[in-house]
Amino acid sequence: MIYQTEISVNVGVRGYHLITHQIIENLPSMPEKGLLHLFIKHTSAGITLNEDADPSVRTDFESFMNKLIPENDPVYTHTMEGPDDMPAHLKSSLIGNSVTIPITGGRLNLGTWQGIYLCEFRNYSSSRKIVLTMYS
Amino acid sequence: MIYQTEISVNVGVRGYHLITHQIIENLPSMPEKGLLHLFIKHTSAGITLNEDADPSVRTDFESFMNKLIPENDPVYTHTMEGPDDMPAHLKSSLIGNSVTIPITGGRLNLGTWQGIYLCEFRNYSSSRKIVLTMYS
Amino acid sequence: MIYQTEISVNVGVRGYHLITHQIIENLPSMPEKGLLHLFIKHTSAGITLNEDADPSVRTDFESFMNKLIPENDPVYTHTMEGPDDMPAHLKSSLIGNSVTIPITGGRLNLGTWQGIYLCEFRNYSSSRKIVLTMYS
Repeated sequence: MIYQTEISVNVGVRGYHLITHQIIENLPSMPEKGLLHLFIKHTSAGITLNEDADPSVRTDFESFMNKLIPENDPVYTHTMEGPDDMPAHLKSSLIGNSVTIPITGGRLNLGTWQGIYLCEFRNYSSSRKIVLTMYS
Repeated sequence: MIYQTEISVNVGVRGYHLITHQIIENLPSMPEKGLLHLFIKHTSAGITLNEDADPSVRTDFESFMNKLIPENDPVYTHTMEGPDDMPAHLKSSLIGNSVTIPITGGRLNLGTWQGIYLCEFRNYSSSRKIVLTMYS
Repeated sequence: MIYQTEISVNVGVRGYHLITHQIIENLPSMPEKGLLHLFIKHTSAGITLNEDADPSVRTDFESFMNKLIPENDPVYTHTMEGPDDMPAHLKSSLIGNSVTIPITGGRLNLGTWQGIYLCEFRNYSSSRKIVLTMYS
């Protein structure tokens, strides 16, 4: 059995944003055993799992990733869409644009500290489309 | 229902290569709802999704990733297979060696700008094996 | 059909550890066609596929990733859990915390040189929980 839906999430500004609750709210009752696949339909944003308790982790992700993959690197030739564009493409492939999470006993089987991050790599964005596919 | 096949893709030279059409050509008719899993059976190549419109994005991926994960780094001890080998292993795990794409309405539900990249990290390679598994 | 189980793997110390055999030992007989999803329930460890033949690849992963994502970077503000903590979170999202492997003919359809790495990013850890979900 497959359940599939597409949602729009509007985080607005650059950064690493917790969206665990918005994902769960868009799911019907979950099976005893299964998988949830989340897929962001963009090449300048990402989706990952990481610590959801202390907001400083998300701040440090933003700071460190900007240092690792800087704007205005002299090797970039794809510069027409602004200095935040090519770094956004690189981050998207390094962080990844989908996650698959096990479902167990009617719940997402996440670890104690795992939350779902929407990673917005552009300075500003309109809403981002995420496809949720649940297998049971 | 599961459809599975293994294909060989020969891109020949190092770089980020668009293979969206080759993947689709090797699939039977797609279901209303499902998932496609692509898996590259190699440790010195990768597979990712990114912008498929402007080729300069793929050129910049090559330039930037070579700078981020350089050849001949003094920490490498695994050097017998050539200077491009250990960087290729590192890139393979950072970019990743599989992607899962939702299928909706009989088509891959990719975003407007998303294409499938085969990332060849060795200077030269023979063909690369990709396993396609489609669930419906 | 779905088979799902959760196992604990105790690698003890920081580094990249081959766990292919421990994963296979915890699976029942595998189907003709299917997928295996492995998910590590932690934000300071990762799971990836890479070369399983020469141990120097795993040593070089440890050396290079420590250089790429160093401890005590001045941008970090999340420092209360020790100098190895924030780098561990970053590595976890860059390497990733799950892999999906095709199953073909009753076996994991890995490439000749592909093995499953448990990436322990903390200096010391107790056991790590991995959820195995097999679809057929």
